[in-house]
Amino acid sequence: RMFVRVLCAVLLMGALPSQTKASQGHISVVLLGATGDLAKKYLWQGLFQLYMDQVSNGHSFTFHGAALTALEPGQKLMFDVLKNLACPPDEPPNRCAVLKDQFLKLSQYHQLKTAENYTALNREIGMLLRQEGLKEAGRIFYFSVPPFAYTEIARHINSSCRPPPGAWLRVVLEKPFGHDLQSAQQLAVELTSFFREEEMYRVDHYLGKQAVAHILPFRDQNRQFLDPIWNQQHVERVEIVLKETVDAKGRTSFYEQYGVIRDVLQNHLTEALMFLTMELPTDVSRAEEVLQSKLQAFQSLRRLEKNSAVLGQYQAYTSQVQEELQKAQGYISTTPTFAGVLIHSDSLRWEGVPFLLASGKALDERVGYVRVLFRNRAYCTQSETLRDAEHSQCKPKQIIFYIGHGALNTPAVLVSRNLFRPVMPKGSWREAMGQSDVHIFGQSLSDYYVYSPVKERDAYSVLISNIYHGRKDFFITTENLLASWGFWTPLLDSISHQPPRLYPGGTDNQHLLDFEMVSGEVAFTLSEPVELLKPNKMMPSDYKTVQSTFRQNPLVSAWSEDLIFQMASDIEKTASRTVARSGQFHLALSGGSSPVVLFQRLARHHYAFPWKHTHIWLVDERCVPLTDAESNFFSLYNHLLQNVRVPYFNIHPMPVHLNQRLCVEEDRGAELYAKEIMALVANASFDLVLLGVGTDGHTASLFPHSENGLEGAQTVVLTESPVKPHQRMSLSLPLINKARQVFVLVLGKGKHDITTLLSRVGHQPRKWPISGVSPSSGHLVWYIDYEALLG
Amino acid sequence: RMFVRVLCAVLLMGALPSQTKASQGHISVVLLGATGDLAKKYLWQGLFQLYMDQVSNGHSFTFHGAALTALEPGQKLMFDVLKNLACPPDEPPNRCAVLKDQFLKLSQYHQLKTAENYTALNREIGMLLRQEGLKEAGRIFYFSVPPFAYTEIARHINSSCRPPPGAWLRVVLEKPFGHDLQSAQQLAVELTSFFREEEMYRVDHYLGKQAVAHILPFRDQNRQFLDPIWNQQHVERVEIVLKETVDAKGRTSFYEQYGVIRDVLQNHLTEALMFLTMELPTDVSRAEEVLQSKLQAFQSLRRLEKNSAVLGQYQAYTSQVQEELQKAQGYISTTPTFAGVLIHSDSLRWEGVPFLLASGKALDERVGYVRVLFRNRAYCTQSETLRDAEHSQCKPKQIIFYIGHGALNTPAVLVSRNLFRPVMPKGSWREAMGQSDVHIFGQSLSDYYVYSPVKERDAYSVLISNIYHGRKDFFITTENLLASWGFWTPLLDSISHQPPRLYPGGTDNQHLLDFEMVSGEVAFTLSEPVELLKPNKMMPSDYKTVQSTFRQNPLVSAWSEDLIFQMASDIEKTASRTVARSGQFHLALSGGSSPVVLFQRLARHHYAFPWKHTHIWLVDERCVPLTDAESNFFSLYNHLLQNVRVPYFNIHPMPVHLNQRLCVEEDRGAELYAKEIMALVANASFDLVLLGVGTDGHTASLFPHSENGLEGAQTVVLTESPVKPHQRMSLSLPLINKARQVFVLVLGKGKHDITTLLSRVGHQPRKWPISGVSPSSGHLVWYIDYEALLG
Repeated sequence: RMFVRVLCAVLLMGALPSQTKASQGHISVVLLGATGDLAKKYLWQGLFQLYMDQVSNGHSFTFHGAALTALEPGQKLMFDVLKNLACPPDEPPNRCAVLKDQFLKLSQYHQLKTAENYTALNREIGMLLRQEGLKEAGRIFYFSVPPFAYTEIARHINSSCRPPPGAWLRVVLEKPFGHDLQSAQQLAVELTSFFREEEMYRVDHYLGKQAVAHILPFRDQNRQFLDPIWNQQHVERVEIVLKETVDAKGRTSFYEQYGVIRDVLQNHLTEALMFLTMELPTDVSRAEEVLQSKLQAFQSLRRLEKNSAVLGQYQAYTSQVQEELQKAQGYISTTPTFAGVLIHSDSLRWEGVPFLLASGKALDERVGYVRVLFRNRAYCTQSETLRDAEHSQCKPKQIIFYIGHGALNTPAVLVSRNLFRPVMPKGSWREAMGQSDVHIFGQSLSDYYVYSPVKERDAYSVLISNIYHGRKDFFITTENLLASWGFWTPLLDSISHQPPRLYPGGTDNQHLLDFEMVSGEVAFTLSEPVELLKPNKMMPSDYKTVQSTFRQNPLVSAWSEDLIFQMASDIEKTASRTVARSGQFHLALSGGSSPVVLFQRLARHHYAFPWKHTHIWLVDERCVPLTDAESNFFSLYNHLLQNVRVPYFNIHPMPVHLNQRLCVEEDRGAELYAKEIMALVANASFDLVLLGVGTDGHTASLFPHSENGLEGAQTVVLTESPVKPHQRMSLSLPLINKARQVFVLVLGKGKHDITTLLSRVGHQPRKWPISGVSPSSGHLVWYIDYEALLG
Repeated sequence: RMFVRVLCAVLLMGALPSQTKASQGHISVVLLGATGDLAKKYLWQGLFQLYMDQVSNGHSFTFHGAALTALEPGQKLMFDVLKNLACPPDEPPNRCAVLKDQFLKLSQYHQLKTAENYTALNREIGMLLRQEGLKEAGRIFYFSVPPFAYTEIARHINSSCRPPPGAWLRVVLEKPFGHDLQSAQQLAVELTSFFREEEMYRVDHYLGKQAVAHILPFRDQNRQFLDPIWNQQHVERVEIVLKETVDAKGRTSFYEQYGVIRDVLQNHLTEALMFLTMELPTDVSRAEEVLQSKLQAFQSLRRLEKNSAVLGQYQAYTSQVQEELQKAQGYISTTPTFAGVLIHSDSLRWEGVPFLLASGKALDERVGYVRVLFRNRAYCTQSETLRDAEHSQCKPKQIIFYIGHGALNTPAVLVSRNLFRPVMPKGSWREAMGQSDVHIFGQSLSDYYVYSPVKERDAYSVLISNIYHGRKDFFITTENLLASWGFWTPLLDSISHQPPRLYPGGTDNQHLLDFEMVSGEVAFTLSEPVELLKPNKMMPSDYKTVQSTFRQNPLVSAWSEDLIFQMASDIEKTASRTVARSGQFHLALSGGSSPVVLFQRLARHHYAFPWKHTHIWLVDERCVPLTDAESNFFSLYNHLLQNVRVPYFNIHPMPVHLNQRLCVEEDRGAELYAKEIMALVANASFDLVLLGVGTDGHTASLFPHSENGLEGAQTVVLTESPVKPHQRMSLSLPLINKARQVFVLVLGKGKHDITTLLSRVGHQPRKWPISGVSPSSGHLVWYIDYEALLG
């Protein structure tokens, strides 16, 4: 009844556009948690804005506030909020006053507690519509309630508040959406039992921030300029930053469970990152294409490791937690309130470009931005002093999506004038005059084209409008959510017990939170002011690596990391010397887990390694397809070969998969490999063979009492392993012993027993195949770490 | 006689160290061109310096000036020079005066014109030595004469002036050493017929500049700091620059033949580049190792193309040439007086790092430097305004070898303070106090550790001392010289007719000579002030590419470059669509020269290409080893595969080399490939097959009247080509026609006749195999460039 009267009033007034389009149907908006903080601060205002924008565009509306509070007190609470709704500055005051009055009349409060309450709400909406003869277009349920309440509300809506066929249902969910991958999956499964994917609108209010929301349109509208430069060749780095001055005081019960990564990075900053890195779909207005492309961008992200992040915590945090959560005096929180994270995408477009995400509380300023810094590709021949001509190509080039606050104190898009004059949508962004005394990222504001929104809009207004328009690309789909948690969870797991660096807060932080990238990882620039004691490693001597002998051959020993360093460096030395002598280097590598770290070390730190002249052979292989995760070659490829430049022609996997079958005798794979070795390796004498040792004393795929390969003329053999996969191909002991050099790598406590045993036994290859390794005219070096050596 | 008296005088004076070490023998220095400019300006002073430094170190000396001038006038000319020799400021005036007197007495003038003159000189030296009972240690012949005189002088020295056995001969040669690779080789061959390699000392006086000479020692002494950062991960760019304010006036007869690249870049700047990029030998004091390593660094340089350089010429140059060389009014010189060149090294260490070499005359300042700029790897959490703490990690990081002049006006080594405090040899370099008002490369001098030489030494003094010490690593060996010419000559050839950009000279140049890197090439930043008319290309329409039909199928036509762009982009689109649909993309590629440009385009410009999910197959192959330059796969690998990231497992070369032999029927390679296709490609239906057309109408390796492959059930066949290598493997026509899409690429005038023919004939595969291409359920698109289409 109420809203019919309003419609009449509107029609009578004549001041507003015709309502003839109202035939498009009616929309009921139900705001759950109608009297909560978020509702008070943003949501009602957003709904009012929606009403103002859409009142004359064909839909009619009713707004249903709901909460657990009983009808009367609830009504009062809610209308106190509604009365205070503000009129936006660009709205004529008269029109706004009328519309506000209407909005109030179209709004009702409901107590929603029991199943009956939901049934009643549904009945009421239905009745209202029937009475007025209006077609129902759809219903929006906005969950502004704590997540523990989700499931029950969802169940009620699903069972009793679904609109009739032909009308849509949209449920709007507010974060947190879980705590890690597992909990997010669980929550998703629950919700999916009540709602279809297209019915769910998960809010990340950053997607409503005007500068963030404009990243994709900007990329789309400026394709002509960006196409050639939006890639690793031109982009030097990207920073995605949200700095806050406030701390977590008063919110520690929430914050202590989440911390800065879950609160800001996993959602807000990650979404901005995706908008930057995803491949642009042909049509950016098609939500489905955008979402698909975004998911693909997630697939390209390199897995985060413990050292992908630096963590901080402002000093007062622990005492705030103690106080607010009534913890004991000795309680120490390890929840980070600051994080800097280095992210890499392995897509061809972004390979090698560092994406730095940083956020924290109690910092020196409040500001949010997404900054793309381009490489300086110019050389200015004129000397610096004569170079200050406007917009020289030697000045920095950057594009900044300025989210808000900070020196500009408004959302903005900034493009260095020496880049290009961007295409911006005239209706919604306008060029702002730069005050040249403001400096942004090392440059005067006048060095940029600066655009700010014609109408500054609150994120929730933007989002509510997008819910209304069904723009699902402004929301987080289940797949998107799980992809993001899937990306962040390994990092969260690995740092869960890591003590963050303490910082005083505010400008006192100085350089304490600066961090640097070092070979794909990050570390604070300044060393810890109070040095923590290093874990109590007993070092057998002052030397990093100890040189001695083992089984009458040289032994190198150290903690495993140092040992790997030493071995990698020895391998490089051997390689360089060999290439200098003979023009090529034939290296035979073993499978297993021990060499993985070595492979990574070689791939990352040995730039002078003569890969171009190196041939890679396999010491042994499992009879599985080369693309199988169990394949030695596959592991070697993943950890080493794909990262260095060994020519395709120099890579020699074992032919265990001939004629589409595995290690069949008659395919003569072993013979083929032997022939290949004969053809390419002088005297079939490898320059270096890298071996490991099993706890049973096996090496290569030569197991105790093996029928093949321990002696005889065969150089490559098929063998049987006691563990799966049983079938193997292996170099034979006689062939290994023809090598110029053999390195044996033994790592870890688990190898202590066999190491001890080997130190005592003689040449007994049938019992312990490794004991038969004894190069006839080459050298053997043992690399055994302290754990294997000393237990 | 003369020098014995001097020795006595020295002994009697007792002021100088004892001469007992004189038993090490006597050195005769012969300076040819003793009265020329270089000798006047630098060489005599350098020899005097050598004498002052070495008089008490065991060798005795005589100095023989020589020229074509007759004895008496020559003597007078020469002694006028010698009388003006300066005493270095750090030498006690008394000692210097005595030594200068002695030096004059040890110096003689000789006319060296005829064979007899040389014999006489030799006789004189021998006699002198015999009379004084001195052992001969060696002879230095310094060629300060024009290069046309080299051969004759060399012949005379070789035939009549060689020292007796046991004493060494060192001949010192001044550039130019040829004009390009061929002339340098010729000159080298001539010289090699007279002198052994170890006897020749080719001077590049830049190797005597203190800052340049210190690059290697610096790298060696600072290994601990540089090891982790001296690579592509950390170095953003390197600039090697020599700017001059003077122009070529008065020297155009030389300059017009050489130009700036031959005059400065090929030698001086390239040598500095090598010192930076070469792998450090274990012992940098061992000349042999240094030279070897430098040669290797040359091997890694990527070939220069026409667009690797920007060229300029100061405006007055042509009229100076007209005047000095008596050229006609209309004469226009294309000799560059400015060049900016972008160099890349393909070593793993330097891959992707731009090395910018720039030099020019008539520029705004005189300065020389080698500047290594490191990437900014830090993120400073504190806002800029609060960040100005000293030596923040967010300030630029650079190492500069400052050769001289410019703002500092002294040789220097500068290291940003936020990098490290360098180790410098105490005796020869000292820390200089930075005046903070001087700015060097955007930073205050106080941001650097600044070191300058304790004793500033002229390059020629340094070099003469190095000749004396036999330090061959300070000179250009024949191999080194030829490597350098080998590197520069292709560029010099390709630009020999390219008109340089004119620039006014001095500070008026403004930004006219600024240049930028664009996908591996360089271009001036500002467009040419006076646009030159583009070569008169007749475009059949306003469209870049024309769409039409050919043989009832779609035709795309354009100038070849645009056509390749279009095709690459169409292939990417097909690939992305296919991967989105089926998760993988099976692409079969043809050999031949036409696709090479396509491969390069795909490798360089298509970052979004889903290589990770692409399988690469060969359409046909020549029966040669895969590593043979004639192999289609080898070419494909070189131009495409090594530059993108197709997983190893997705690369499918044709098995033309089984069991170490080529395309033997019984090895069943064709069958094996067919099986592989069946196993991996759904329905054996490739997603895209790229074909070419031969002038005889062949496609793939299916030639007219071929017995195999034009029809029948076989999918992969062995065929015979009318041209070498005759044996081929090829996909069959029936298999090709199963593809979802086939693109045929036809480029160049040479294909006009066959194109015209094909436009008229029907389906006659036995006569023209290409006419049989007609995908049964897929699409065929012709890509024919205007030259092939229109002739």
